[in-house]
Amino acid sequence: MVRKPQTALLLASPEDTEAQFYEALQAGDLERLMAVWGDEDEVCCVHPGGPRVVGAAAIRASFEQIFARGAVPVHPECQRRLVVGDTAIHQVLERIEITDEDGTQSAWVVATNVYLKTALGWRMVAHHASPGTSQDVKQELSVVSVGAPTTLH
Amino acid sequence: MVRKPQTALLLASPEDTEAQFYEALQAGDLERLMAVWGDEDEVCCVHPGGPRVVGAAAIRASFEQIFARGAVPVHPECQRRLVVGDTAIHQVLERIEITDEDGTQSAWVVATNVYLKTALGWRMVAHHASPGTSQDVKQELSVVSVGAPTTLH
Repeated sequence: MVRKPQTALLLASPEDTEAQFYEALQAGDLERLMAVWGDEDEVCCVHPGGPRVVGAAAIRASFEQIFARGAVPVHPECQRRLVVGDTAIHQVLERIEITDEDGTQSAWVVATNVYLKTALGWRMVAHHASPGTSQDVKQELSVVSVGAPTTLH
Repeated sequence: MVRKPQTALLLASPEDTEAQFYEALQAGDLERLMAVWGDEDEVCCVHPGGPRVVGAAAIRASFEQIFARGAVPVHPECQRRLVVGDTAIHQVLERIEITDEDGTQSAWVVATNVYLKTALGWRMVAHHASPGTSQDVKQELSVVSVGAPTTLH
């Protein structure tokens, strides 16, 4: 049974909901994470390199498995947003900190997050993540610095 | 300049728009493919294993590059659909035929497609594709055959 302790206030905008999602990942907090998701039967999730996962119960099980290995040191960066009416689509570069004996390094994931506005606030209905490349980050930096994508060498 | 020759009739439902998208890929028809996309600035696309691509001009360039190698023998299968109001989110298993001297084999891609209803019909605003595994297909078959996902050996 998924608890929905969040008030609509915490999910008042797509940005708020996205913040809740990533904070829950960082905290390894399964209840908080699942409270972000919408109530639709067909909510869907693809983890990097993984199969598609459809429905709240299956999504919950997939994150439970991830959290069994610990919280996820993920930092959302370089969001691009498309909002039309009650629908928001965010593309996020997720920076994941990987720490080993050589120190901490960053890995990148490209994620598409879809949110719908409901009576209970903005809820996530789709999260599709796939392994990114350093090219993504370089492209973003070039966009920021020169105002348009450039070919990078 | 992107031509929009499609009538709203061809994009009358998310399923129609999705059919146009995959038929355009199969035909290697860039104009037809781009006519499926919405007019929003932040339409976004992630090709399997690739970086994110934002905006119609960049998306067009990315498909032009793909079509330079030929049309894409892709077959959408096992759609899962979530429709709320004027928003449709489809998860599709894309079967891609790869032909070499050993014959034809299938590779699988997991795609999330987002469509919004507009005055010009349902238009694609996001396409995120990532390499799938045979596990995806087995899961789907098990869902079809027994009504619930099972652990596969």
